[in-house]
Amino acid sequence: MCNHENDHQHNHKHRKSVINRLARIEGHVRSVKQMAIDERECPDLLLQIAAIRKALDNTAKLILTDHMENCLVGAVHNGNEEQVLQDIKKALDNFIR
Amino acid sequence: MCNHENDHQHNHKHRKSVINRLARIEGHVRSVKQMAIDERECPDLLLQIAAIRKALDNTAKLILTDHMENCLVGAVHNGNEEQVLQDIKKALDNFIR
Repeated sequence: MCNHENDHQHNHKHRKSVINRLARIEGHVRSVKQMAIDERECPDLLLQIAAIRKALDNTAKLILTDHMENCLVGAVHNGNEEQVLQDIKKALDNFIR
Repeated sequence: MCNHENDHQHNHKHRKSVINRLARIEGHVRSVKQMAIDERECPDLLLQIAAIRKALDNTAKLILTDHMENCLVGAVHNGNEEQVLQDIKKALDNFIR
């Protein structure tokens, strides 16, 4: 998950949790799709979509934590943090506008 | 999708689009899960998660549009808009904090 420090990949301690969360989110989206097919009430659909969005944000936070704890720290040790910092800023721009 | 105006259910003109969008989002989440399994780079994962969030928000907007165009307008005609307005406010609270 880190292109700058390939030898550190096994150190992404939240990776399994990220995969599990994405699997749960996938199932959650599938169930909301079924709710839409079943003509369930609009406010119920909106509530579920808000919950999925929150779960996505928490997953993104976990990926970012992994990225900073591993890729960024490793890159600083190797003196090549410029690119990693630029990547993180670009990723953050997509979440915080 | 509207509990207050059951006879208006067939008027949710965006319902098919909502179901299609949710199906695409489901596939998108599945592919990001596979990216995490494949140890893809953190910034790539974050970029995809941001794209999914945006797609979710656009889907929520579509549901809200349907809800206002049908349930709310119908409720106002019948003089029982109080509950529908309260539901919409509650749903919006989850998106705009």
